[in-house]
Amino acid sequence: MAKINRNYLSLPGSYLFSRIGEKIRCFQEQHPEADIIRLGIGDVTQPIAPAIISTLHDAVDEMGDAETFHGYAPDLGYEFLRSAIAQKDYRERNCDISAEEIFISDGAKCDCGNIQEIFSTDNRIAVCDPVYPVYVDSNVMAGRCGKYDPQTGRFANVIYMPCTKENGYVPQLPEEVPDLIYLCFPNNPTGAVMKKDKLQEWVDYAVYHGSVILYDAAYEAYISEAEIPHSIYECEGARKCAIEFRSFSKTAGFTGLRLGFTVVPKELEAEGTALWPLWARRHGTKYNGAPYIIQRAGEAVYSAEGRRQVLSQVAYYMENAKIIYSSLRSAGYEVSGGVNAPYIWLRTPGRMTSWEFFDYLLEEAGVVGTPGSGFGPSGEHYFRLTAFGDRKRTIEAVERIGRL
Amino acid sequence: MAKINRNYLSLPGSYLFSRIGEKIRCFQEQHPEADIIRLGIGDVTQPIAPAIISTLHDAVDEMGDAETFHGYAPDLGYEFLRSAIAQKDYRERNCDISAEEIFISDGAKCDCGNIQEIFSTDNRIAVCDPVYPVYVDSNVMAGRCGKYDPQTGRFANVIYMPCTKENGYVPQLPEEVPDLIYLCFPNNPTGAVMKKDKLQEWVDYAVYHGSVILYDAAYEAYISEAEIPHSIYECEGARKCAIEFRSFSKTAGFTGLRLGFTVVPKELEAEGTALWPLWARRHGTKYNGAPYIIQRAGEAVYSAEGRRQVLSQVAYYMENAKIIYSSLRSAGYEVSGGVNAPYIWLRTPGRMTSWEFFDYLLEEAGVVGTPGSGFGPSGEHYFRLTAFGDRKRTIEAVERIGRL
Repeated sequence: MAKINRNYLSLPGSYLFSRIGEKIRCFQEQHPEADIIRLGIGDVTQPIAPAIISTLHDAVDEMGDAETFHGYAPDLGYEFLRSAIAQKDYRERNCDISAEEIFISDGAKCDCGNIQEIFSTDNRIAVCDPVYPVYVDSNVMAGRCGKYDPQTGRFANVIYMPCTKENGYVPQLPEEVPDLIYLCFPNNPTGAVMKKDKLQEWVDYAVYHGSVILYDAAYEAYISEAEIPHSIYECEGARKCAIEFRSFSKTAGFTGLRLGFTVVPKELEAEGTALWPLWARRHGTKYNGAPYIIQRAGEAVYSAEGRRQVLSQVAYYMENAKIIYSSLRSAGYEVSGGVNAPYIWLRTPGRMTSWEFFDYLLEEAGVVGTPGSGFGPSGEHYFRLTAFGDRKRTIEAVERIGRL
Repeated sequence: MAKINRNYLSLPGSYLFSRIGEKIRCFQEQHPEADIIRLGIGDVTQPIAPAIISTLHDAVDEMGDAETFHGYAPDLGYEFLRSAIAQKDYRERNCDISAEEIFISDGAKCDCGNIQEIFSTDNRIAVCDPVYPVYVDSNVMAGRCGKYDPQTGRFANVIYMPCTKENGYVPQLPEEVPDLIYLCFPNNPTGAVMKKDKLQEWVDYAVYHGSVILYDAAYEAYISEAEIPHSIYECEGARKCAIEFRSFSKTAGFTGLRLGFTVVPKELEAEGTALWPLWARRHGTKYNGAPYIIQRAGEAVYSAEGRRQVLSQVAYYMENAKIIYSSLRSAGYEVSGGVNAPYIWLRTPGRMTSWEFFDYLLEEAGVVGTPGSGFGPSGEHYFRLTAFGDRKRTIEAVERIGRL
């Protein structure tokens, strides 16, 4: 008789963004006339840049001609894309990462969710609190997190690292040593960043204890200040302790095109076993590569024209971030983030819980954001707004919030 | 200290097609002048059909315009594609499957590899022998297969169902009852098919014992005979015991575009728990949808023009299959498959092992096929050729083999 994976039953409620979507659908059904502005799920709104569109058309034509048709992609991604990444994202920042160490995928969410598979189920994980739900949920599914306590909103076997106003939303090195450490900077959801000397402390800590850092750098394109590292490999020793995740979703608006990559340095080991072959084996066995045309689109992001165009989109969103930040601050809200990240993190007014504030904003202002508590218990009484909206709509949203 | 998933170390050698690729690379380095014909990995060679190319261009243009840009796809896939599939692949064949029960993905390989996650690690799996390696390898990675015996080429906890000349390459119902049963028809690698009355026996068996059938129908488009079921849901009771995987790779040449889907009926349960929400949760947590433009391309496969064009490609490949089948038979080989499937299964001449014949064909004829033993111990002394080549090259390949 078939038996289910009971770990799935330990997952509390539905995936955060599915729940938000459900709430919006219900509200829309009841208020078909409502003009809803979405600053919630973190989806981009700017169209794909012209240089990339043009590359996509060329690649589509290649697929329509037997001479230039591409079938199965190489297991780990096309060389042209891996080389461009190694050069532009790493070597030009003095990071010692080679094309061979880059695994192309259909997005950082998938990679962040799948990476735990190459580790034993008895590893103890550490996550920031609040945190992007995929890190914890994928470990719950694998049975790594123990019992869920609905009172505290925490799993027994997870080491939570609170990120609060007091520590500037940057976690302290945990006293109890974790085996796997999830870090995401610039941070989702708080918009906080970690300076290089601080990140170096984490790398040293991980090397010393034999922990592996799973470093999500999906938002590195939004860094505006010089002293903030774009990659964990800017730190000495990171090749021995860190896996890095990157995404084209926020860098170049690929949320609907799906492209990302993971870096696994060849010298990274656990228990004396190299991790590169394990991830390569997973990739080769359970994945079949990102579409050729999408990998070509990714390559175009690194061309001179593509680069200029996507940077101007990032600048557009960061202007939104400034507008949200300053408007909310003027309206009396306590806000952070938004300087090196497309996320603005705000404290809910009065004694409202995050979900109360979600309902309040949706019903009274027709604005959708993301409840901070959906990212973990320390996110309670906080709320995330994203800078990915259209300019006019973003201004309209903060004006509506200001009028409340 | 981080600990690895030791199950990965139980995997014997590298993934079959990676090993073949490595052997070809070495041979090419040593013989740069060699003209190699690949009838091995099962990759298609016909370009994407014109109706689909045209749809792709339109969808790319949509992505370049803010008014029609598409960001994150709905978790389970776009309604337009799910509806087309439910109508054309299921309702028109009198299968009771709704759009809601269809999960869009980036390919059947990924889904076949990931599906085991929603089941407990103590399920006992059954696979055909020979078999597509992903079914076993993904279960080895999860720790479900026990110890590997290099002598027999078998894992201790897997129920192997030999598919041999004697049983027409169709397995018998196993005496020891498995929890999860992987079936693939039309079969990869043997090209064998299962008639409807036989498949009904499997469905009855699974319903009786509470087993779940994981039915890989990636090659259904190649069925030419009327009595062969295209979907397991043509059998009564299958909604209570079966998950079905489908792919656009072989149907419409999408190996480089990446699109597939999985059907999980709402009434399918294990231990009284519905499987639909578990798979939906996995999809929502670890996956972010197939690209919008690729889903639009998938929809075009179901248009009148698209349908006509992809059927003509299938016919082209099936003509190749006929040529391979009859040429090899004339040359004195023992062959099967190739009538309802793009695969020809042949017995190696003399006492040659599958890998010996692989090397022999590569070195003496410059033809690449797939060693039967790579699909399991009962595949030893067999060899797979695929019909996915170019016509001229296919003819050249069988002529070279005939001359040996």
